[in-house]
Amino acid sequence: MRLWAFLLSVYWVSFVTYFILWKSYKHVSNLRATARSTPDVKPEEFAVLVRDVPRSSPDETIKDSVDSYFRALHPNTFYRSMVVTDHKKADKIYLEIEDHKKKIARAEVLYANSKTESNPEGNKPTHRTGFLGLIGKKVDTIEYCSEQIKELLPKLEAEQKTTLRDKQQRAAIVFFNSRSAAASASQALHAQVFDKWTVMEAPEPRDIIWPNLSRNIYERQIRQVVVYSIVFLTVVFYMVPITAVSAISTLENLRKVLPFLKVVVDRPAIRTVLQAYLPQIALIVFLALLPAFLTFLSKAEGIPSQSHVVRATSGKYFYFVVFNVFLVYTLGKTLFASLRTILDNANIGVIINMLATSLPGGATFFLTFVALKFFVGYGLELSRLIPLIIFHLKRKYLCKTEDEVKAAWAPGDLGYGTRVPNDMLIATVVLCYSVMAPLIIPFGVAYFALGWLIAKNQVLRVYVPSYESNGRMWPHMHTRIIAALLLYQATMIGVIGLKKFYYSPILVPLLPISFIFAYICHMRFYPAFANTPLEVAQHELKETPNMDAIYTAYIPQCLKPDKLEDLDVFEDAQSHTTSRAPSF
Amino acid sequence: MRLWAFLLSVYWVSFVTYFILWKSYKHVSNLRATARSTPDVKPEEFAVLVRDVPRSSPDETIKDSVDSYFRALHPNTFYRSMVVTDHKKADKIYLEIEDHKKKIARAEVLYANSKTESNPEGNKPTHRTGFLGLIGKKVDTIEYCSEQIKELLPKLEAEQKTTLRDKQQRAAIVFFNSRSAAASASQALHAQVFDKWTVMEAPEPRDIIWPNLSRNIYERQIRQVVVYSIVFLTVVFYMVPITAVSAISTLENLRKVLPFLKVVVDRPAIRTVLQAYLPQIALIVFLALLPAFLTFLSKAEGIPSQSHVVRATSGKYFYFVVFNVFLVYTLGKTLFASLRTILDNANIGVIINMLATSLPGGATFFLTFVALKFFVGYGLELSRLIPLIIFHLKRKYLCKTEDEVKAAWAPGDLGYGTRVPNDMLIATVVLCYSVMAPLIIPFGVAYFALGWLIAKNQVLRVYVPSYESNGRMWPHMHTRIIAALLLYQATMIGVIGLKKFYYSPILVPLLPISFIFAYICHMRFYPAFANTPLEVAQHELKETPNMDAIYTAYIPQCLKPDKLEDLDVFEDAQSHTTSRAPSF
Repeated sequence: MRLWAFLLSVYWVSFVTYFILWKSYKHVSNLRATARSTPDVKPEEFAVLVRDVPRSSPDETIKDSVDSYFRALHPNTFYRSMVVTDHKKADKIYLEIEDHKKKIARAEVLYANSKTESNPEGNKPTHRTGFLGLIGKKVDTIEYCSEQIKELLPKLEAEQKTTLRDKQQRAAIVFFNSRSAAASASQALHAQVFDKWTVMEAPEPRDIIWPNLSRNIYERQIRQVVVYSIVFLTVVFYMVPITAVSAISTLENLRKVLPFLKVVVDRPAIRTVLQAYLPQIALIVFLALLPAFLTFLSKAEGIPSQSHVVRATSGKYFYFVVFNVFLVYTLGKTLFASLRTILDNANIGVIINMLATSLPGGATFFLTFVALKFFVGYGLELSRLIPLIIFHLKRKYLCKTEDEVKAAWAPGDLGYGTRVPNDMLIATVVLCYSVMAPLIIPFGVAYFALGWLIAKNQVLRVYVPSYESNGRMWPHMHTRIIAALLLYQATMIGVIGLKKFYYSPILVPLLPISFIFAYICHMRFYPAFANTPLEVAQHELKETPNMDAIYTAYIPQCLKPDKLEDLDVFEDAQSHTTSRAPSF
Repeated sequence: MRLWAFLLSVYWVSFVTYFILWKSYKHVSNLRATARSTPDVKPEEFAVLVRDVPRSSPDETIKDSVDSYFRALHPNTFYRSMVVTDHKKADKIYLEIEDHKKKIARAEVLYANSKTESNPEGNKPTHRTGFLGLIGKKVDTIEYCSEQIKELLPKLEAEQKTTLRDKQQRAAIVFFNSRSAAASASQALHAQVFDKWTVMEAPEPRDIIWPNLSRNIYERQIRQVVVYSIVFLTVVFYMVPITAVSAISTLENLRKVLPFLKVVVDRPAIRTVLQAYLPQIALIVFLALLPAFLTFLSKAEGIPSQSHVVRATSGKYFYFVVFNVFLVYTLGKTLFASLRTILDNANIGVIINMLATSLPGGATFFLTFVALKFFVGYGLELSRLIPLIIFHLKRKYLCKTEDEVKAAWAPGDLGYGTRVPNDMLIATVVLCYSVMAPLIIPFGVAYFALGWLIAKNQVLRVYVPSYESNGRMWPHMHTRIIAALLLYQATMIGVIGLKKFYYSPILVPLLPISFIFAYICHMRFYPAFANTPLEVAQHELKETPNMDAIYTAYIPQCLKPDKLEDLDVFEDAQSHTTSRAPSF
């Protein structure tokens, strides 16, 4: 009787999950369509990113060959093209100038503040020109920086010219004169050979990772393979340091290594709490080190946009977290002990059985894990205590000008890269323990219910997104929740099977049902995420788009001409081919 | 030493196959690009097939909603649309009229021939109006048929009107005024929701299967699932009759059942030959019954074009032939005997081992099989003996008019549906036995070398293709050859492993290499097969396309207006909405 209830609960949980997933996908899909059909002019909706531009003849610039190719294929809708340049050097000079400007602003504020009644002249701020302002000649900051800017400006101008003409890369952004023309062009196969003229929807200007645009298709693929191999090794062998950390981080060891903790550790109340939470805290701290590494790897893949990098990071992090937190903590020593058994019978049945045997043991650990995340995580998130402290410290000791205060206050992005996989881990844990240790369900529900309220508040009122991907994160999360669901179902089959329950094979159909569900969702909703449907792109605009402004939006800061009238000069600089020889 | 040679041969064979596959794909891909960029005007290059047209409001015809939708999305390039109608009834009347016309022509020839010197008046041909011309009233054929045509013509006209206005289906062919506009429209996602306005490249007019166009996306998917289940059952359980046939078709059994064969069978020379070839002949005859059934199933899937049906049939037939001829004949009784073992240890290793044990036994059988195909098949093909006999019989006894003789002489299509999977079977067999029984290689090489010459000759000089798919069959064949290659490699790993050769795992990397090779080929060449690249579509045309002629090409024979000027009337008939109520 109890086993029947058990069995039916698995079905019930699965179908509730399907229902929620379906509704969410539909909802996000509608939101995306609404967002993409607003009457506001967005530059990225008029642009297409072109990569793998073939090597043109020596007396033709890449700009010219892009222009002639797209003008021939889209004679009525092609507006303009902008070749991607290698502007690293120009960018460096530009940033130096900006830096000097900031220093001047800061020095002026300091100078004004120093004019007290007792010292009406004030002290002119000075600094040293050497390493970190510690050594070298002492100079008057305002004068020195103004001179530097005067020196750098012509250098920047010269570098801009050189960059535009001689540092063109094999990628371009092509602009069309209507949204639907751009949407249609981004979906059409352009070249007969696969490795030339690959097109895709252009990312938002601030979302672009410039150095990645010019990587060619072979380089991208090789990089992808290498990165995935590294990620695989990281995921599988990261458990070695994790195990080491959990072995060390017992209270007794800590007392020995760090004797000054004795005062705290020897109090019985604190001791109990610490003993319960220490391994979990160690794990959470440990996990915080990883995202930066995974983001670096994702960028190295050659992905053209920041938002895509975040998705890729989040995907890698999810696999890491499920494997290293969920599986390793569940199986624990069983895994290493039975590694030989697994290798001898490389059979999915053996693995499921093993999971089923060890899963119940992890229940307490994961209950506390979810509870901790719930109690501590949300408090920190909502109060934004740490950013507040940092802001006040900065304002007191570092910030002098208005701009600096503003920058210190800026809340930044939501940080999808780690937030999403961590929430996915909670979902996985709650799903997998929902039937065996139902006490986890209220915690899970509370976690996500409160999370919904808090995240919504933070997104609407606190964080400032630095780019907009119109819900493209959702299909990615959807896939991973289904992966979690499959893990849950496979484990349950094992758990009930272990109890020698005669009817346990009744659960087996759940696995194909989940695959079919995933396939149907993908077929039904994904196309409108992968591409912009023409129906959506052809919505009326509020105003006639200002094509010059759209074009300008994509010019990197360091190459931007001072006045809009100079746009043609900017474009001409890319096409002129005659004066190539005498390079600056 | 012998085993090392064995092992290296497997690598050698695999890499030669990769090389050939790569070169062929590249070659076919170039041929396709050339074929698609010819300056001739082809109607299908200006058209897009639209399915799943949503239900329009009750006072708007489907034609109007298609027009307004596509005019809005493609304002500059949309030319016209043609809604697909259910013209079954009109077609029936049209065919009746054509039949009567043929009868009149035939009767006139008979009448003219009957005017001999002795009978200058001649006999007016007559026939009976009842069942098969055997019962009923005797009538004068020419008079009767002329009257029938006179009666049917107004009926056809009325039916045409009704069909165009009231029998519009939820599918349409949309015409664009340039090739690249059509190519680009066929690749763009149109609707936000997946189940409306699905677009694809239009098949050639003569290639279209009209009744399948209007099936909606859900119906298509359900039909596909049902058809695949039926095919799966057919493939797996067809071995029951095959086994029965091979058991019966021994000479002794035949003698008993058909005693009149004794005269032939008792001669020792014939007996020896028959004993060697009888099972193979039985198999070949048996396989000839299947294609019609598989074609019927493929059509039932809801595939819109004849050429795609042929590809689908050929795919199903290949799996059938590999499973039922190759596997069943190789494993033979071992398969049934060890079914329990397989079910108990559902493990790929066990299956490979079993294959490896039984494969050597099949060598002689398949050597004769390839040799038989080579000696008998090509002779029949090249001499076209059977069509020749049929033609002469027809001309002597059936054909009276010029048109009938022409129709009897028409060689028809190449029959890709069965020819391709049969050749793929030979490729599979030759690959799998190439190392164990190298004697099969000269036969295989001779088979394909001669096949190349003969098929080329037949294609260029004999067969008349009834539609052109521009090489879309190749990617399909490519995938299946790789499947054969994988089967070969897996078997070889088993065969060498059985000999307890220490270095046999050296072969294992071949499997992932094959998968990577397949992926690279797919990524590199397939996109240009799935869609027309804009680069190819924008090639200059020889003349300005006559859009009316392009539009007319897609009007089904039975609905075609008599004069081209009536085109507008034809189109108007689809749009008019006012006179819907009084239906004919």
